[in-house]
Amino acid sequence: MSRTLVDAVRHVKPAVRRIAAYALASREAAVKLNQNENPFELPESVKRRVVQQALERPWGRYPDFDPRPLLERLAAFAGWRADGVLAGNGSNELIETLLVVTVGAGTRVVIPEPTFALYALLTKVLGGEVVGVPLAPDLTFDAHGLRRVRVGVGAPVTIVCSPNNPTGSVLPPDDVARMCTDSDGLVVVDEAYHEFAAASVVPLLADHTNLVVLRTFSKAMAMAGLRVGYLLAAPALVREINKARLPYNLNVLSQAAALAVLDAADVLRANVERLVEARERLLHQLYRVPGVTPYPSRANFILFELADAEPAAVFESLLRRGVLVRDMTAVPRLARCLRVSVGTEPQNETFLEALRHALEEQRFTRRAR
Amino acid sequence: MSRTLVDAVRHVKPAVRRIAAYALASREAAVKLNQNENPFELPESVKRRVVQQALERPWGRYPDFDPRPLLERLAAFAGWRADGVLAGNGSNELIETLLVVTVGAGTRVVIPEPTFALYALLTKVLGGEVVGVPLAPDLTFDAHGLRRVRVGVGAPVTIVCSPNNPTGSVLPPDDVARMCTDSDGLVVVDEAYHEFAAASVVPLLADHTNLVVLRTFSKAMAMAGLRVGYLLAAPALVREINKARLPYNLNVLSQAAALAVLDAADVLRANVERLVEARERLLHQLYRVPGVTPYPSRANFILFELADAEPAAVFESLLRRGVLVRDMTAVPRLARCLRVSVGTEPQNETFLEALRHALEEQRFTRRAR
Repeated sequence: MSRTLVDAVRHVKPAVRRIAAYALASREAAVKLNQNENPFELPESVKRRVVQQALERPWGRYPDFDPRPLLERLAAFAGWRADGVLAGNGSNELIETLLVVTVGAGTRVVIPEPTFALYALLTKVLGGEVVGVPLAPDLTFDAHGLRRVRVGVGAPVTIVCSPNNPTGSVLPPDDVARMCTDSDGLVVVDEAYHEFAAASVVPLLADHTNLVVLRTFSKAMAMAGLRVGYLLAAPALVREINKARLPYNLNVLSQAAALAVLDAADVLRANVERLVEARERLLHQLYRVPGVTPYPSRANFILFELADAEPAAVFESLLRRGVLVRDMTAVPRLARCLRVSVGTEPQNETFLEALRHALEEQRFTRRAR
Repeated sequence: MSRTLVDAVRHVKPAVRRIAAYALASREAAVKLNQNENPFELPESVKRRVVQQALERPWGRYPDFDPRPLLERLAAFAGWRADGVLAGNGSNELIETLLVVTVGAGTRVVIPEPTFALYALLTKVLGGEVVGVPLAPDLTFDAHGLRRVRVGVGAPVTIVCSPNNPTGSVLPPDDVARMCTDSDGLVVVDEAYHEFAAASVVPLLADHTNLVVLRTFSKAMAMAGLRVGYLLAAPALVREINKARLPYNLNVLSQAAALAVLDAADVLRANVERLVEARERLLHQLYRVPGVTPYPSRANFILFELADAEPAAVFESLLRRGVLVRDMTAVPRLARCLRVSVGTEPQNETFLEALRHALEEQRFTRRAR
């Protein structure tokens, strides 16, 4: 390496050099409950149909410049107009595109905290200022606080993940409507987990042109590996966001898969119902584990707090028993928390069994000291 | 739509509202020579292998957080180190990520013009200032001008597409090396078409930590529909760029396809040789068409200028004969130009035949007036 090393890196913006990379240690486990994935794989028939289409079309040709058939299907599925829809390489990409067109040096972005880390990371990378609004003491949304701060700082952009990752609570649509009316600043609602809550703010789109809804195929739609997300908003706003969308951003196989999955929506809906039932059972079982306080969730995961046991040790103990959950201890306010995705019934049983063992082990260790 | 319409859009940055969207009218044609795609489809065996792998793995699980196997293969393929490689959803995504971490309000980005439109578009969206350096009168690079301007404005970022789209000329590696030494500003070389030029600046990476090379699977690798690109640079720089890379940006099927295509590199190399031969033949045939001036090209396309005929009319006439080329007339300095991708021999023959007819038609129309 030549001596220009340090100098070359200085052209990276200071805001970027200051932040730590978003990272997730790669851990192998038989029961993987760390990424809120759907444990029910897509029907084999759906996958075969997509694969057949893939074989029939040339891979050397670009996707259509305008993925009209997909946008129209997404519009019909979501109950919105096709000229108010954008599709992306996962909703992550659409979050980035939205922030790229709205956030510059010093732009204030209001974000409830704790939440999905990407909103704050991208805001900082773009030179914006994150204005965090703490969740209430019970980790539900502080709707009043959020409205007050948003209007107080005149925020051009507010981003709310609802149901919130990693806490699971929903910001009621009435509060979202009030926020949209309080000021014309954009209100972005990331509905990555909405299917598990049976709640959506999409019906508000018709009345609020400052509302943006993000959706993903990674959770209820069981397509995390194929990266498809979409954005819903007023057509005038969508036209502006679309200017920064990368051409051909969604590959042909993922587009075909998204269309096939929309055709199989009934199967997926049934799986969502099973997961919601499993979540409720898991929640009630967690309530009965001494030293564990779960937070009620309307998503496909449950955040839980440990009274005495060391969370990092419990995490490792679970892993030794083949169960991978998410360690939340690095997140402010969640220093005693782990998050578990809702799996199949047998997976959830394995997790509970492993958790009881882990806590027992911890009690023994503490007594021995 | 409510009356907040205009107000909501005002939160989109003025720089974005000012620009026009990157657009490409969708036109159907039997002979598609408008996007510099590879006319030779991937071997059926490669596609079948990818599809088989796709069926065997769950689509509901995220791609690996760190696509290490792909990065290592790309490094070996390109002749660089794996910790100096990033993979993306097409090279477009990596251009965006690179600019997101380096360009803020007023950042000067030096770009030879005319070139691929995305560099300037993203620079403007991010609030940067495009400093255009005109190509020489013969549409080759003005290396001296580029070096002078770059140092003169103290550009943190310079982006060169080499071979250049849409003109086809290469910036000699020696000039790239001099630029890297002139100042520590980043020198980004987009090598989307490098296979057709048998020229690359990758060997310079070891000595220049301010050099960034972009590559794509969309052209020589015949995978435009699957969206895979990669970036090569010094590890310290890659670590910074990686902070703004979206997690899980490359879907599992495209990753599998990229690996399979690297295994079939011999077949693809042979196809590149056929295309290079076809390009040379096409160039010499175009030289012989009266009223047509082709520009020598080291990519898989040829830009040509029309002396008297109306380019838009020739474009439409070609299309009526089933041949779709790219109309470049909206680009400054290329008001009399069309660009044709090099296709298979029969496709190139069809194009030439259609071009001769179109020009004849034009001469007839002019005489009739």
